[in-house]
Amino acid sequence: MTLIDGRDISQQIFAEIATQVKAMAQAGKTTPHLVAVLVGHDGASETYVAAKMRACERCGIRGTTLRFEDSVTEDQLVGAIQSLNNDPDVDGFIVQLPLPAHINEQRVIQAIDFRKDVDGFHPMNVGRMAIGLPCFVTATPQGILTLLDRYNIATDGRHCVVVGRSNIVGKPVAALLMQKSQPGNCTVTVCHSATPDLGRFTRTADILITAVGQPRLITADMVKPGAAIFDVGITRQPDPTSPGGWKLCGDVDFDNVAPLCSFITPVPGGVGPMSVASLMQNTLKAHNKQL
Amino acid sequence: MTLIDGRDISQQIFAEIATQVKAMAQAGKTTPHLVAVLVGHDGASETYVAAKMRACERCGIRGTTLRFEDSVTEDQLVGAIQSLNNDPDVDGFIVQLPLPAHINEQRVIQAIDFRKDVDGFHPMNVGRMAIGLPCFVTATPQGILTLLDRYNIATDGRHCVVVGRSNIVGKPVAALLMQKSQPGNCTVTVCHSATPDLGRFTRTADILITAVGQPRLITADMVKPGAAIFDVGITRQPDPTSPGGWKLCGDVDFDNVAPLCSFITPVPGGVGPMSVASLMQNTLKAHNKQL
Repeated sequence: MTLIDGRDISQQIFAEIATQVKAMAQAGKTTPHLVAVLVGHDGASETYVAAKMRACERCGIRGTTLRFEDSVTEDQLVGAIQSLNNDPDVDGFIVQLPLPAHINEQRVIQAIDFRKDVDGFHPMNVGRMAIGLPCFVTATPQGILTLLDRYNIATDGRHCVVVGRSNIVGKPVAALLMQKSQPGNCTVTVCHSATPDLGRFTRTADILITAVGQPRLITADMVKPGAAIFDVGITRQPDPTSPGGWKLCGDVDFDNVAPLCSFITPVPGGVGPMSVASLMQNTLKAHNKQL
Repeated sequence: MTLIDGRDISQQIFAEIATQVKAMAQAGKTTPHLVAVLVGHDGASETYVAAKMRACERCGIRGTTLRFEDSVTEDQLVGAIQSLNNDPDVDGFIVQLPLPAHINEQRVIQAIDFRKDVDGFHPMNVGRMAIGLPCFVTATPQGILTLLDRYNIATDGRHCVVVGRSNIVGKPVAALLMQKSQPGNCTVTVCHSATPDLGRFTRTADILITAVGQPRLITADMVKPGAAIFDVGITRQPDPTSPGGWKLCGDVDFDNVAPLCSFITPVPGGVGPMSVASLMQNTLKAHNKQL
């Protein structure tokens, strides 16, 4: 069994991007610039944006946080997005979600020029991905593809079972892995809350991707020996033995499932760290005008 | 076994739309207007556009065919599309594919205002569909959903296997049937040319949708008794017994498979006639500004 080390791969990616950006700077070229729009003072959002800015530093990417108070109106936010769309010094930007309840998230997302939408949330990017056109892919699915690639996990002709049908993980990773590409070319099954007897499907998976946020949903009897497992679930669970009184749990009953697998991602340290790495890759791609 | 009669359902839909359009006209309102852009003189394209115009007549929808010679340039075509985008008297329009080789189809499709893209080919509509936002859905997948609905075929929690991953049938019908909606909420598997042992998957299907254009690919041993089967394949096969010397064949070995099924679409007369019905539904939706 190989434990997939997302922290290590994400550090490798940061180093690779840093080398490219350094070469740009040395050649007198402008370097990539990412803007994160942050509304309000939600603790989790602050943490995520700070992590993204730290990653920018690691990569030599210019990172700017553009802050608004909770009281910002939807029109003001859309106006700011239009300015970012038109600013030639901004390669890509993200709007950290969730937004306050009085703001229509879809209107805000759709105000972003899809060529700067490095989060890949704009319907144009979702549609271009489905059709197989150049696009920005959302962070977690792209992270999973990167891990499949870096660990040389064969996908061609294999059965991939995705548990969860969210717009940011389940559906896009399914769409990507069914494409005639590498990694890809899988037979793909998407299971979700309405799937009776989930094990009937997961037991046939060569590659199992689970993203539902239900601790220990996937037990050893639900896994095919030799499967490669990507656990996107992250749930806080009470744990009296850890200093904070809690620990992070994935969707997979790791201790009992891991011995059966060919590859498995731990939680934390598996798929999670890849999200920010994907964002850095997308920012570089935006800078290089690859769309 | 119930034979699904797509001709009958499409006629019902035409009649229902005609009633609505007649009421609009009687109330002194403008009626829907569909434009079909036809480039060149390809026989199949001529036939398809003529069928669409006939359907418009049946529905009371105003139908206009806008013709260009094969020699039209991409810029001229894009210019014509921009005029249609801006014409308030045009509710929706389609560009009949394929286009001549010197024209970039994706550029043409993406020039269409997605709110008038009644074929549902624009990446904005593909993306909006994947996310679950109001959109125009491509004709065949929408036709299959209509048949599921009109024949009261249960989908909730059932396993749907889609054979084929084309952008206009396989991928969108899979995306639709995995949504939390009715019809929908299926566990969905997408198989394709790289799927080894196809029967292993098709045998588990409660609903089997096949769209590959490979005559008699699906044999009786590959079908679960009681399955509902939608056969999108259409291939011309030599047939000395028929007047023209050929007949249309689906992907399913109909004679041997049909007795096993709960529901099955014949070829021709099953899914095929639903395409034009879907286009008429989309035109009405465009007229009613439902996006």
